[in-house]
Order: sequence, then structure tokens, then C-alpha cells
Amino acid sequence: MEQRVSLITLGVADLERALSFYRALGWTPHTSSVPGEVVFFDAGGLVVALWGRASLAADSVVDDAGGWGGVTLAHNVRGTGDVDTILARAEAAGGRVARSGAPTPWGGYSGVFVDPDGHPWEVAVNPGWPLDDDRRPQLG
Amino acid sequence: MEQRVSLITLGVADLERALSFYRALGWTPHTSSVPGEVVFFDAGGLVVALWGRASLAADSVVDDAGGWGGVTLAHNVRGTGDVDTILARAEAAGGRVARSGAPTPWGGYSGVFVDPDGHPWEVAVNPGWPLDDDRRPQLG
Repeated sequence: MEQRVSLITLGVADLERALSFYRALGWTPHTSSVPGEVVFFDAGGLVVALWGRASLAADSVVDDAGGWGGVTLAHNVRGTGDVDTILARAEAAGGRVARSGAPTPWGGYSGVFVDPDGHPWEVAVNPGWPLDDDRRPQLG
Repeated sequence: MEQRVSLITLGVADLERALSFYRALGWTPHTSSVPGEVVFFDAGGLVVALWGRASLAADSVVDDAGGWGGVTLAHNVRGTGDVDTILARAEAAGGRVARSGAPTPWGGYSGVFVDPDGHPWEVAVNPGWPLDDDRRPQLG
């Protein structure tokens, strides 16, 4: 198995609400999305999908604990101001700022928003992982 | 907020067990990993991390429901044989095959394994998303 992730699917309770939230953050669904069924975002080398959480649980053959399940995504940016801007935008769009932007013990700056379905995103500046021209983190 | 994911952190109960599992699948930790603390995998443009689940919950400022939380990852490959091989390898490494490889309603072929911490991975051939030279899915 190669060291790659092709797709991250986020289970949602209300597809339209979730889509509105990510649209408000500036994301655009791919034309192959199926209205009322599934949303695909081309995230530059991998796909982020929104799909009904019950469907995803059934397809993944797992029991749904109903809350957070041990996965957190992160979105790295270049400037601390970008962190604060994105957190504010997430809050305005109906997300919850779980942790405001602040310096981190590892020498960076980050905050966390939680989307309307309870999926947390850390928004971070990580000086140890510079972003390349495609804004992909380089571990060096 | 750009349409990108920089990091996926998987919360784990036992870091060594989780690391052994992903090593057995063929993954190699990045040298910046901190033994006993956190593991980073360079997944070609994004990072996959393994970190203690309680630490991740605290850092993400979320309550931990204790099971699956509505996120499923997928790893796309080119051949159906690759799906079956990876599922067998995951099972041999201590994972659970939740769904064996089989044709899907959307014209592909996929199965699901669940890692030792309950994180499901769909392993799939998706003819609608051809993989480029870096094996990144192209939505067309």
C-alpha cells in the first residue's frame, strides 16, 4: 500500500447545510457532484467528499458512535493573519471556533474550527513544514 | 480558505501498535517523527499523523464519542488485484476486513479495512477518477 490518501469522506447530517458551509469558506464543488446525494471537492491531488453520515457508516461497515471519532484535519497557511481570517469566516458561516488562533508549543500558530457536523479543522502556520508553490507541506 | 488538506491526524490508543500496522502495510515514518509521541507519514503533498487520541481530542477541543465519528479515508489503486492484495495485507497486519473486495454500484471495485484503532479505509478502483503519474485522482 503506497503512502497516499485519495479521498476523505466527511459524513454529514444535512448535505445542503454542509455544502453551504464549505461554499462560504470559498470551496467550489466539482461538477461531478450529485445534487442531494454527494458533494466532491477537488482538493488538489485528493478529493474531499460530503456524504450522508448513515450512508457512509453503512458503506464503511462500522458502527456510528455519534460524535467525534478520532480524526482531525488540518489546513496549513503561510501567515498567522490567514489563520485568524479563516477562523472568523468559519464562524460567520455557522461553524464553531473551538480554539482561537494562538502560538503553539511547537513554534507555530494555530486555531481550530468545528464544522456544522462536528468535524474539526486545525488551521495552522507550521514553520517546520514550509508550503511549496502548490501549498503542499514539505517535511524536508 | 483554499480547497486543500495539509494534514490528517488519526487518534490512536497505542502508538507502537498503530505504527507497526502502518509499517506492515509498507509505510515509512518521516524522520521528524518523535518516538513514543507522534508519527508523521509524508503522503505526497499532505501529511498523515498518528497521535494519542486523548491528546488529539484535547488539542481539537472536542468531546470523544469513543468510536467512529463520521470520517472514512480511501486509497485508490489501478487494479482490482491491488485492492485484494492490500486488504489481505491489512488483515495479516492486525486490521479487520470490514468489506471484502467486490464490484461497486458506481462501476468500480472496492473493499474496506479497519485499522487497529477503528479508522476505516476504503481501498478502491474508481474508473471515473483516473490516477495520474503520482497516483493522484483526477476528477476530469
